[in-house]
Amino acid sequence: MKNIRIGIIGFGTVGRGVVKNLQRNLAVFRRHFGVPVELAKIADKDLKTDRGINIPQGMLISDAEEIVNDKSIDIVVELIGGIEPAMSLIKKALSNGKSVVTANKALLAEKGEELFKHAGLHNREIFFEASVGGGIPIIKGLREGLAANRIFSIYAIINGTTNYILSRMKEEKISFKDALKSAKDEGYAEADPRLDISGMDSAHKIVLLSSIASGKWIKLNEVYSEGIEKVDQIDIEYAKELGFVIKLLAVYKEKNNAIEVRVNPTMVGDKGMLAAVTGAYNAILLEGDFVGNILYYGLGAGEKPTASAVVSDILDISRNIISGKSRPFIPDFPNREKKIIGIGEIRSKYYFRFTVLDRTGVLSKIAGVLGDNKISISSVIQKGRNKGNAVPIVVLTHKAYERDMRDAIDIIDKMDVTKGKTVVYRVGGF
Amino acid sequence: MKNIRIGIIGFGTVGRGVVKNLQRNLAVFRRHFGVPVELAKIADKDLKTDRGINIPQGMLISDAEEIVNDKSIDIVVELIGGIEPAMSLIKKALSNGKSVVTANKALLAEKGEELFKHAGLHNREIFFEASVGGGIPIIKGLREGLAANRIFSIYAIINGTTNYILSRMKEEKISFKDALKSAKDEGYAEADPRLDISGMDSAHKIVLLSSIASGKWIKLNEVYSEGIEKVDQIDIEYAKELGFVIKLLAVYKEKNNAIEVRVNPTMVGDKGMLAAVTGAYNAILLEGDFVGNILYYGLGAGEKPTASAVVSDILDISRNIISGKSRPFIPDFPNREKKIIGIGEIRSKYYFRFTVLDRTGVLSKIAGVLGDNKISISSVIQKGRNKGNAVPIVVLTHKAYERDMRDAIDIIDKMDVTKGKTVVYRVGGF
Repeated sequence: MKNIRIGIIGFGTVGRGVVKNLQRNLAVFRRHFGVPVELAKIADKDLKTDRGINIPQGMLISDAEEIVNDKSIDIVVELIGGIEPAMSLIKKALSNGKSVVTANKALLAEKGEELFKHAGLHNREIFFEASVGGGIPIIKGLREGLAANRIFSIYAIINGTTNYILSRMKEEKISFKDALKSAKDEGYAEADPRLDISGMDSAHKIVLLSSIASGKWIKLNEVYSEGIEKVDQIDIEYAKELGFVIKLLAVYKEKNNAIEVRVNPTMVGDKGMLAAVTGAYNAILLEGDFVGNILYYGLGAGEKPTASAVVSDILDISRNIISGKSRPFIPDFPNREKKIIGIGEIRSKYYFRFTVLDRTGVLSKIAGVLGDNKISISSVIQKGRNKGNAVPIVVLTHKAYERDMRDAIDIIDKMDVTKGKTVVYRVGGF
Repeated sequence: MKNIRIGIIGFGTVGRGVVKNLQRNLAVFRRHFGVPVELAKIADKDLKTDRGINIPQGMLISDAEEIVNDKSIDIVVELIGGIEPAMSLIKKALSNGKSVVTANKALLAEKGEELFKHAGLHNREIFFEASVGGGIPIIKGLREGLAANRIFSIYAIINGTTNYILSRMKEEKISFKDALKSAKDEGYAEADPRLDISGMDSAHKIVLLSSIASGKWIKLNEVYSEGIEKVDQIDIEYAKELGFVIKLLAVYKEKNNAIEVRVNPTMVGDKGMLAAVTGAYNAILLEGDFVGNILYYGLGAGEKPTASAVVSDILDISRNIISGKSRPFIPDFPNREKKIIGIGEIRSKYYFRFTVLDRTGVLSKIAGVLGDNKISISSVIQKGRNKGNAVPIVVLTHKAYERDMRDAIDIIDKMDVTKGKTVVYRVGGF
């Protein structure tokens, strides 16, 4: 049998990690499979930068097309990110009989259905462990290790930048702006951090996890998403007082075939496992009908963790190439009659911080509006009197529908005594 | 292609979970693989007990030999536990061309090398996900998801009974004896809990994890093991004061080809992920050279979590049967020149609780003995004076060799001023 030949497109940070790992492990792979895995070519527009590793003369080329059209290459590793030209290159590689490993969550979240269909037509595979949670083998977990389960819920911290910022804000009592600046200075946030802080990166990733868990392609525009730009130090402090920590959570839930998928800052219990996930770490907490609660925790980004996932995929595909069998993407449970529910239909507990005049009867007025909208209060914090001026009132609620919550807040925000927009957090029940 | 037929030996708690899961998922497996997985036979000596599930007439038989000798059966699931007859049945099944799924950690820890060699001879596989961490796919993680890594360390809470007891002791400030009684009453401890509380069950499991991580069979008698029988409430309280929690940890470490494997109650930092693992939960924290720190957390026992792991293995083996390829057990990294180091060679930080007369100069005497044995003190707690009577002195140390520590404690325990055996805990650096 001929060697299994790897072509890598994109020789940036992750590409360098993959090459380092492959160079070290080629002998191991040979023993595993009885055939050598071989690094054939690397394509990158930048042929000049010194990446600090030795590669044979002529291995680094500038034209990615040369890799997807090379008949001798078996597996194409796409590490350039973005929609194009990644999309066209992957499709061409599949058409040409190659399997693909990618870390490209944006592409898969937007074009996954089309790409996996294309892969199926050509009887080839797309592996994408590195696209969610860096080195954490969560895709393998969902597809294989937990395959015997129906997944009821996923609560995931899957963006290291935002978790780092929120951790810094909590630990050092600094503002979002200052924490973001630190994150940039220390390399935890990109120069343009919008994809991360807006929640969009988490949305891409929860689309992938939800699609596997539900056996149905979730569309990116079906995911309700909020970022962390508006997280205020005062709410972090109130959260602490109430026994919570604010985390940017990506959430998937399924109940009676109704699916909820969303990304938003959430208050989670400070004694739980998710609260213990600090800094740039990621964690994915799942509930399955047989396995119960299970959590994966690790580094969600970086050269080496991401390379760990990419190379694990190369190993899996190599195994499948040798055996001549590919594996389907979707777990495909029988109950596929599922509908995505809108954000209004979601039930949650809530944290409200009202900014209202310190005047007798205000709390009773607020409680009245909440009650009219079927929202019942579980606790109230009202401190620091400031007669006649605006003060905060913090309210925790029992579970209520999002649409009722929004109706109530609309009314409250228009009241004469209300002097600022009400701050709302969903509160996680774990 | 003919159906993939499953024979189950042992129709107890886990067996029932596996049958329930298979009955529900047969249609899914058919779609996954294009061939039906089929439950063929279940063997158990007890044919009478109502397990609360319907199985076809004649499927439950009393003779396990009938399953291992049935030519139509492809996969044998061994769920009876213990060494014999499990060992003989598994060997016969392998000789007869069947692959095996087992949850039997005691058998694999003691006879794994022989059994896997036997499986290799017959070109068949033994899968054992359920043997460590119940439903947590940690074996798959080590063998596949993290296969690109060299594993530097494993810190694992892999016995739910002992973690439950230690959690109760901490939360309710009760004695070991009372917590054990509660654990028995609530079904978290067996009538005879010795295997769990002695640390032996954790030792079995760390043998398996260490063997995969190191690529070398670790022998059970090379594992230093201590149980939780002697954990005293007073040390739980001192630990808390010092920022630690006591956990029964199974530890694997590798450095420069020297391997350390042990099980002992350990003080871990109260802010870390391991401290957050309470009740009957399990967690495995690994460090790999590429992935960095990664943690798996979930339920380590019980009908449904264990069945989740067993059925995941059935799926994996089915895939391999269909493709006609099996996978080797050991990751087999090149650096196989490894030696197991004895407990004396292990370096750790320590917690000591001395019981000594409250007399001037005692602390300086103790510090002198420690210093003579190359142990330096990082902090001391000495409170509650009781002139002329025995009082506790608590000392935390920097890293030192276990043999030096033992020499020092031997001397101190023989001093006139010492009125009780010194209590020692290793302190984990995470």
